Amino acid sequence: MNETRHIRADWIAVDWGTSHVRAWAMGPNGARAEARSDHGMGGLARDAFEPVLLSLVTPWLGSRETPVIVCGMAGARQGWAEAPYRTAPCAAAPDAAISVSGTDPRIDVHILPGVKQVRPADVMRGEETQIAGFVTQESDWDGTLILPGSHCKWVQLSAREIVSFRTTLTGELFAALSDHTVLRHSMGPGWVNSAFDEGVAEGLKNPESLSAKLFGLRAEGLIGSLTPDAARAQLSGMLIGWELAATRPYWLGTDLCLIGDAALSALYARALAAQGASARTLDATDLTLVGLTSAYQALQKVL
Amino acid sequence: MNETRHIRADWIAVDWGTSHVRAWAMGPNGARAEARSDHGMGGLARDAFEPVLLSLVTPWLGSRETPVIVCGMAGARQGWAEAPYRTAPCAAAPDAAISVSGTDPRIDVHILPGVKQVRPADVMRGEETQIAGFVTQESDWDGTLILPGSHCKWVQLSAREIVSFRTTLTGELFAALSDHTVLRHSMGPGWVNSAFDEGVAEGLKNPESLSAKLFGLRAEGLIGSLTPDAARAQLSGMLIGWELAATRPYWLGTDLCLIGDAALSALYARALAAQGASARTLDATDLTLVGLTSAYQALQKVL
Repeated sequence: MNETRHIRADWIAVDWGTSHVRAWAMGPNGARAEARSDHGMGGLARDAFEPVLLSLVTPWLGSRETPVIVCGMAGARQGWAEAPYRTAPCAAAPDAAISVSGTDPRIDVHILPGVKQVRPADVMRGEETQIAGFVTQESDWDGTLILPGSHCKWVQLSAREIVSFRTTLTGELFAALSDHTVLRHSMGPGWVNSAFDEGVAEGLKNPESLSAKLFGLRAEGLIGSLTPDAARAQLSGMLIGWELAATRPYWLGTDLCLIGDAALSALYARALAAQGASARTLDATDLTLVGLTSAYQALQKVL
Repeated sequence: MNETRHIRADWIAVDWGTSHVRAWAMGPNGARAEARSDHGMGGLARDAFEPVLLSLVTPWLGSRETPVIVCGMAGARQGWAEAPYRTAPCAAAPDAAISVSGTDPRIDVHILPGVKQVRPADVMRGEETQIAGFVTQESDWDGTLILPGSHCKWVQLSAREIVSFRTTLTGELFAALSDHTVLRHSMGPGWVNSAFDEGVAEGLKNPESLSAKLFGLRAEGLIGSLTPDAARAQLSGMLIGWELAATRPYWLGTDLCLIGDAALSALYARALAAQGASARTLDATDLTLVGLTSAYQALQKVL
């Protein structure tokens, strides 16, 4: 007789982004199983969050109520239940989660708040949990955390506080230019490091001329010698260089740590290295789980 | 008995862009009729151009062969027949058109070349005909022509020559950011002039910080007081201000003339006026027809 070995969760960790949701069955030694779907917050009505969650985690539920700790966009105003922002400067570790009432009795859902900054106006939801995870691991570290992605967060961390932060649109901007402007005809699938480096130098040194240089990528492809692979790398470099121009106070003369996808983090590390700044890289998922575990443990103390 | 009054064309003027094509039945006093479709060059295979043209102009054809003068993307390498670029610096009025062979005997098609610039690399197809039209009307004018649109051309004109030019992606960039990034949630349909003015000043003075200011539009809408209509105007202003930073040598201390859509030209005029630069505005279609007429007359002299 075949026996299905059931995985039970002591508690469930959830990272609910705009385009995806990931859940983990957690035990005393970390994640026992993972489930994910593309039912991100962006496409869900308020009453659709619970069914989506249950479709992912039901196999892990037992007879007792299972705590569920959620970070990310599920706490936005248009999400499952609003978890109002904390205001920076603030402790890196969240001090409170909001409890979602009226759910299926098998789950006890808590959503972590994001962080806002009033001036200059800025917001994050999800990244604060990676930052909390980082601080749990390295409580004495001061410097700047860089969290690249569709949006890139630059976070000044000191004495376990988020002192200030800025967000850039670089990832989305690269995608929008590559897919939805005339540059789409000039982009190849490959990559040329030297073209990336040139782009970084250009974006950082001459941000005022970038607006004209962008069309230049198209023109160089039509009448010059720029290959499609080099054009793609150069565009990426220009936008990251432009971002470095905007975030100079965050990376100049400061300890740096990148948290994110390995390939994208490597590009930022390369661009920073060319300015004489070195950054190590940590995995975002690992830190999200550390941050959610930290929040779960804090919650257990309260209950 | 009803009589249909047939319009005949002495010759036919055509402006074939990437997304649209427009044709005019021309007589001694200008356009007698107009036809258009959305069969732009972008979606057409090489052998589809002639059928599209005939579907628009057949009612205007008579027993004798009718000359057809075409400007724009039909002359691109992927267009109907390649009309190789002239190289700037060059005369504003085109000196040669390429003849398309093997067409329907009722039409005699000539396509005007675009203009390229080697360093910095740049290209235009279609705008050079508006410029030729402008020079036909104002042969003694020196200064900078600004042709806003999805791509905006800045053209230094002197002694009836295109001396140099630069293209920016501002129009496409505004559309890509408004429609394909998180900013789409922050944009209203309306407009706030003061927000546009602030954006222009910001983009022109601090182009290095724009990369972070873009996400700020989203954050200001979420936690601040920026309305969606103001966000849209401010984004437009930022991008035009950024463009003014890139094109400063083209507009500083020079006579300026805008050629384009009235509403878009008014935004550029407003942004320039804030810098103390005044520009008058001329209609792009009018100048396209003057430029095509000029090319037709030059062709008649040759034949």
